[in-house]
Amino acid sequence: MTDWITDIPILHEFVTRRDIYPYYLVIEDRPTPGEVIVDGVRAINAASTDYLGLATDSGVRSAASKAATKYGTCCTGSPMLGTIGLHHELEEELADFLHRPAVMLTMTGFQANLSLSALFGTNHMVIADQHIHASLVESVSLGRAEHRRFGHNDIAHAERLMRTATDKGKTPIILTEGAFSLGGDLCPLPQLAELTERYGAGLIVDGAHDFGVLGNNGRGIGEHFDAEGAIDIVTGTLCKAFGSIGGFVAGSVKAIRNLRHFGSAQMYSASLPPASAAAALTAVRTARARPELRAAVWDSAQRLHRGLAQLGHRMPAWPGPAVALPAGEPESGLKKWRALLDAGVFTGAFLPPSVAGDQLVVRITVTAAHTPDHVDRIIEAVGRHLPPQTAAS
Amino acid sequence: MTDWITDIPILHEFVTRRDIYPYYLVIEDRPTPGEVIVDGVRAINAASTDYLGLATDSGVRSAASKAATKYGTCCTGSPMLGTIGLHHELEEELADFLHRPAVMLTMTGFQANLSLSALFGTNHMVIADQHIHASLVESVSLGRAEHRRFGHNDIAHAERLMRTATDKGKTPIILTEGAFSLGGDLCPLPQLAELTERYGAGLIVDGAHDFGVLGNNGRGIGEHFDAEGAIDIVTGTLCKAFGSIGGFVAGSVKAIRNLRHFGSAQMYSASLPPASAAAALTAVRTARARPELRAAVWDSAQRLHRGLAQLGHRMPAWPGPAVALPAGEPESGLKKWRALLDAGVFTGAFLPPSVAGDQLVVRITVTAAHTPDHVDRIIEAVGRHLPPQTAAS
Repeated sequence: MTDWITDIPILHEFVTRRDIYPYYLVIEDRPTPGEVIVDGVRAINAASTDYLGLATDSGVRSAASKAATKYGTCCTGSPMLGTIGLHHELEEELADFLHRPAVMLTMTGFQANLSLSALFGTNHMVIADQHIHASLVESVSLGRAEHRRFGHNDIAHAERLMRTATDKGKTPIILTEGAFSLGGDLCPLPQLAELTERYGAGLIVDGAHDFGVLGNNGRGIGEHFDAEGAIDIVTGTLCKAFGSIGGFVAGSVKAIRNLRHFGSAQMYSASLPPASAAAALTAVRTARARPELRAAVWDSAQRLHRGLAQLGHRMPAWPGPAVALPAGEPESGLKKWRALLDAGVFTGAFLPPSVAGDQLVVRITVTAAHTPDHVDRIIEAVGRHLPPQTAAS
Repeated sequence: MTDWITDIPILHEFVTRRDIYPYYLVIEDRPTPGEVIVDGVRAINAASTDYLGLATDSGVRSAASKAATKYGTCCTGSPMLGTIGLHHELEEELADFLHRPAVMLTMTGFQANLSLSALFGTNHMVIADQHIHASLVESVSLGRAEHRRFGHNDIAHAERLMRTATDKGKTPIILTEGAFSLGGDLCPLPQLAELTERYGAGLIVDGAHDFGVLGNNGRGIGEHFDAEGAIDIVTGTLCKAFGSIGGFVAGSVKAIRNLRHFGSAQMYSASLPPASAAAALTAVRTARARPELRAAVWDSAQRLHRGLAQLGHRMPAWPGPAVALPAGEPESGLKKWRALLDAGVFTGAFLPPSVAGDQLVVRITVTAAHTPDHVDRIIEAVGRHLPPQTAAS
C-alpha cells in the first residue's frame, strides 16, 4: 500500500488545535428551540439553517415517524424504480406551491443542482455568478457547455459575457442564487430578468436559502421581486426552511422530463426515504399555512441587522436571516469564533479557500425559533468578541 | 423566456408510450416481503437492492421512527455544523465492521464517491474501469488528476495505463467496483492488488453492491478475496444491504481528514437525518448479528443463476444476486420487460446509453426476502417472456 494521499498543511495545523477547531463538534442536545449543547457548551444555535424551526416541529416529527413505521426506511433503489405515492404527492405539493408545471425530487439539494449538468449542451454558454454554491460549480464543470463566471452580482460583467456567448452563436444561460448561501444577499433578479429577456437567454436560480423564507407567500426570490415568470428553472432544498432532507428542481415539463432521464445525480442515486418525504410534505404544508413562522424569521433578522449595524459592522443592503462577518486571519478568526461559542453563541466558521480572500468568515443565522432575547444575546456576544475588522486587524 | 431546453427524440418516444414506459411507476404497496404492487400489478420485486430485506425489518423501522421523534427530522446544516452522537456512533460501527481506521458518513453513496475528487491531485493518474458507476465517473471528471479508463476487468489494459502513468512521473490510482452495479460481476481484486503493489499505485474500490452481502462476514470484496489490506479506500452506501440511505468512505485517518475538509459533496451538503442514521446503525448491527440473512441472499442467487443457465442464458462466472440479461433493441426489449411485469415480476430496465451497446438490459435482483418459490416464478417468467438473445433478435 502506497501513501499517495497528499498532506495539506494549513488544514492539519487547525485540526490538531482542539481549542479552536470549529468543525464536526457533537451537538449533544437541543434543550429548547433555538438552543443546543455543543462540545459541552449550552449555546444559542446561530449555525442552523432550519429557518422556520420545522425540523423539530411536532407535526413534522410525527409524520416522519409514522412514515418510517408504515413504509420502511428506504425505497430500495433509484426513483426510477423506487417511487411511492408520497414522492408524487410531495412533487405535486411543491409544484402547486411554486406555481411551476413540473417538479422532480432528488436525494439532496446538492444533487438537484448537480443534475442540471444534463441540460447544459454544446449550443449553450453557462454564465454563472462568482459566488454560486459548490454543487452548482460542479454541475457546470460536468456539463458539456462552455462556461464563464461573472463578478458577484455584477450585471455589467454578466452582460459582457452574454455578448461573448451571442458572438459565438451560443445561447447564454445565467446561473445564480436567490439569497446567497454565505452572506444572505440577494441576486439582482429584475436586472437579470431584463438581460435574459433581451438576449434570449435562459435563467436558472438556486433558491436553497429563499424558498419558505422570502416573498409574501414564501415562494422565494421570484415572488419577492414579482418576477417569477422570468426564471426558467429553480432548484431548492428540503433541508433548510422545510426541516427535512432532499432537493428538487422545478421548471417546464420538458426540462423535468430531460432531468428524469439524463440527470445522473437523479437517476443513479437513491429515492428519498419515506420518513424524509413525509416530513418535507408536512413541513411545506405547515410553512404555507403558518405565515407567522416567516414573519418570526424576519423579526429576528431585522433585529440582528440593526444590532450589528449599531456595533459598526457593515451590513448588506437587504436584512436576511444569514449574516457573514469577516473575523481576521484564520488563527485569530478561529479564536474569535471560539470566544463566541464559549459566550453561548454557536456560529459557522468559514475558512479560505471556502470563502474568497484570506480572512475567516463567521456566519450567523437566525430562525423562527429564536426569541428577541436570543438575538440580543447574539448581538451582545458579537460586540464583545467579534469587533468590526479594520484594515490593520 | 426562451425555450433553450433540448428535445431528446429517443426519450420522448418511450415517455409517451404508457404501455411500455418502465420508469417512475408508483409502488403502491408491499403486500408481503419480496413483493410489491406496482402500476396496479402485484409482482415479485426483482428490482430492489434491499439485499438483506432490512428496509422493512421491524427493528430498523422502529429505530428510525424513534430517532425522528427524539431528534427531529434533520440536523439543520452540513455535518461540519450538524453532527450528532448518532453519526459518530454509526461511523465507529462501520469502522469496526470494515476494519478501517476511519470512516466518514455522507448524505448519499453518490456523494461519497463524488467527494473522492478532492483526493485526486495533479501528481496522480486515475485509472478507472470502464464500467464504474456514474458517481465515480463524475468524481474523476471533477478531480485535478489526469485520468484514463481500462476495458472492463481488463488487467492487461490497466497495466499498460499504469506504465503510462509511471512514464509521466504520476502515481497511478486504480478505481473500480467490488461487485459491479449492473451485472453483479466481481473485479479481479487479487490481480489488481498485485499490480498496485508492483507499481506503487493506489487502489480505491466502491463496495456499494458488496458490503453486507459478500465475504464470510459481509465485509465485501476485500474479505471475499482475503485482500482487504491491498485496498486503500473503500466507499459504500447505506441504501442497499443496509436498508437506509446515506453513504460512506472508509480509509486512513489522513484520507478521511482530507475528505472532511476538502470534499465538496461532504462539506456542502446536509448531515444524514437522525432517522436514517439510526436505521443504518440498527441495520449494520443486524447484518452482523444475523449471518443467516446473507446466506438467504446466496441461496436465492444460486437458485436464480442455475435456473437461468438452464434456460440457456449466459451467466457470469460468479453467482451474485444481481443478473443482467440483454433483451434486444429498445422497443422490443421494453415489451419483454413489460411482459415480465404483467407476469408478476418487476425488474429494472436499462436503456442505452445507460448501458453499453444498443440493447436494452433487464436487471433482476434477488434478496433475502425472496422465497425459493419467488425465485422459481422469476425463472419461469423469464423462460416465457425473455428468451436468450441470439444475434438475430
